[in-house]
Amino acid sequence: MNFQLLKTDHKTKARLGILTTAHGKLETPFFMPVGTNATVKGLSSLDLKEMGSGIVLSNTYHLYLRPGMEVIKHYGGLHEFMNWDRVILTDSGGYQVFSLSKLRKMSDQGVEFQSHIDGSRHLFTPEKVMEIENVLGSDMIMPLDDCAPFPCDREMAEESVRRTTQWAMRSKEAFAGLPDRGQLLFGIIQGSTYADLRELSARQITGIGFSGYAIGGVSVGESVPLMFTAIDQTMPYLPENYPRYLMGIGLPDQIVRAVGEGIDMFDTVIPTRYGRHGSAFTRKGRIIILNAEFTKDLRPLDEQCGCQVCQNFSRGYLRHLIKAGEILGLRLVSYHNVHFYIQLLVDIRKAIKAGSFAEFQKDFLAAYRNEPLNTDG
Amino acid sequence: MNFQLLKTDHKTKARLGILTTAHGKLETPFFMPVGTNATVKGLSSLDLKEMGSGIVLSNTYHLYLRPGMEVIKHYGGLHEFMNWDRVILTDSGGYQVFSLSKLRKMSDQGVEFQSHIDGSRHLFTPEKVMEIENVLGSDMIMPLDDCAPFPCDREMAEESVRRTTQWAMRSKEAFAGLPDRGQLLFGIIQGSTYADLRELSARQITGIGFSGYAIGGVSVGESVPLMFTAIDQTMPYLPENYPRYLMGIGLPDQIVRAVGEGIDMFDTVIPTRYGRHGSAFTRKGRIIILNAEFTKDLRPLDEQCGCQVCQNFSRGYLRHLIKAGEILGLRLVSYHNVHFYIQLLVDIRKAIKAGSFAEFQKDFLAAYRNEPLNTDG
Repeated sequence: MNFQLLKTDHKTKARLGILTTAHGKLETPFFMPVGTNATVKGLSSLDLKEMGSGIVLSNTYHLYLRPGMEVIKHYGGLHEFMNWDRVILTDSGGYQVFSLSKLRKMSDQGVEFQSHIDGSRHLFTPEKVMEIENVLGSDMIMPLDDCAPFPCDREMAEESVRRTTQWAMRSKEAFAGLPDRGQLLFGIIQGSTYADLRELSARQITGIGFSGYAIGGVSVGESVPLMFTAIDQTMPYLPENYPRYLMGIGLPDQIVRAVGEGIDMFDTVIPTRYGRHGSAFTRKGRIIILNAEFTKDLRPLDEQCGCQVCQNFSRGYLRHLIKAGEILGLRLVSYHNVHFYIQLLVDIRKAIKAGSFAEFQKDFLAAYRNEPLNTDG
Repeated sequence: MNFQLLKTDHKTKARLGILTTAHGKLETPFFMPVGTNATVKGLSSLDLKEMGSGIVLSNTYHLYLRPGMEVIKHYGGLHEFMNWDRVILTDSGGYQVFSLSKLRKMSDQGVEFQSHIDGSRHLFTPEKVMEIENVLGSDMIMPLDDCAPFPCDREMAEESVRRTTQWAMRSKEAFAGLPDRGQLLFGIIQGSTYADLRELSARQITGIGFSGYAIGGVSVGESVPLMFTAIDQTMPYLPENYPRYLMGIGLPDQIVRAVGEGIDMFDTVIPTRYGRHGSAFTRKGRIIILNAEFTKDLRPLDEQCGCQVCQNFSRGYLRHLIKAGEILGLRLVSYHNVHFYIQLLVDIRKAIKAGSFAEFQKDFLAAYRNEPLNTDG
């Protein structure tokens, strides 16, 4: 067993646990910064260590296309390539095939696609993806799934569940035949917005048996209430003693709510994507740093934040950098935002430990506004 | 006296000295990373400290236009704005008016120009520039000069010398009337490629008397031999006990040569500009990291380098980052390059101290190729 459930909150469904991987233990719930191209945009592995991240997520689709598996193999794996000795999770690349590549053709065999970089043709099968992730050497790996879009009619959702289960079995079998690198293979639940299909998918995937379970097919365009409905529909069928990963979620308030539903793992590009657009997270909501009101603001992005950026640079200076087109501005706001997410999860774990998560959640959600704090600024 | 000459090399004209400023002492010769918009491109003041820089240069023209003097004044100066408690030198903005702005009109009064950012009209006079630099609060400040272009006919060069001297006198007078912030005002020598005009300008400027002397009108398109000729033509007329600053120079081999001519201060955007284009400096010359030969290269950019980048990341990884359009790649190569320049000056000072600068210079120039090491790669 790689997951140890330490505590379940008595007022919510929040959980505290320890996930043991080949590159160290992680306290759950945790957040995974997204490092698509073997780097979290604007940040190095040294930066991630400095801000206390124990894990980074990277994208199989991107790394497979560039630098390519021959390069990663030459390095001995992704850890060595990006100089990161902590935990790595890689996705299956399936989501990126659907969102980025051209001319994809899906069949039960797998998915054929054209690279968004050079138009070259490739085939991802469940077996191929296991091989790629084995070469990457990531500590937690996701199998190829058929991610239903939104909206999705019932027939298509049924097909997604059927194929995802078939591929999950093939992935597990292929994984068993690969060199043992101490990797943990997760299962992904589909089912779109259909309660019975979510249940069916969860029963099938947990029936096959994996080291952890992910709720997929969320963050694909559905509303936030529908996303939480999918969580509600899936959670009852997930075994207690395995980590639960909500894929691609989300904004800070969504994470705080989802922890209360029993989710253990999160990832999203939001902190860096918003950072590059000059939006900075604070405990009260996010601020758009380009707004004129910050021109002479001597305060840090977030007065409650202990990160390097907030300890050293003011809103007025950061606004100036972004206005002047300086990449340092994007880097510093991204740094703060990723730190904000990591610190948020630190505080969440502390609250669960102290038995005060329900209060934490209530206070956080009362203080936090999801709309930018200064749209009129 | 703010400058103390500690030693003059017995085989070359290299000098070792100490320059005392309001924000600390600097050993000469030294290199100044260029932070145009109150940031060295891609690097923060924390990065500069980490790599051991004692000084940064910033651009009056850029800061005056953006964020503007009202913002800098509100912060109490440039040190506070960019969170840098070490030395700052600011240029006069004259060079940028000529190279960046539109519709400039020069007269003895000053130079009228249109902002390259928003087309707004402005007037820089020698007095106005002193006021701006006083608000910036930089430790060393340059007066407005009339920088002769290249090529430059004799009449124009004479005019440049005449006006530069007139403006130098007005600058000194204006400077004396401003609040005392412990700033050191430098004089700038013009004269283009004319030996007698270089002598005339040097005699006039040193006659007025400043805290240091800069050779201007170089790095304006002339050949390297002509640049060294300008140094030769000027140096005999500069007093020994004042720092000598060669403006806007240069490539590593040019710096090593110019130190041997008695230059004490250097600045150039080369390390960051080349870094953003994926060129990395090594003791053998620069490498173009995008070249295919580095795809699987596990070595650091420079095997003799102790910087954070070379201690942690390989050529293959850096190539991947730049190829993937990741700003982290530009940042890391820029970091290495600025560190390379700073370390080069550390080594130069060490050699002068040890009395072995002539050997250092010979060895460096023998090992260093100015053309990229891998143009065919």
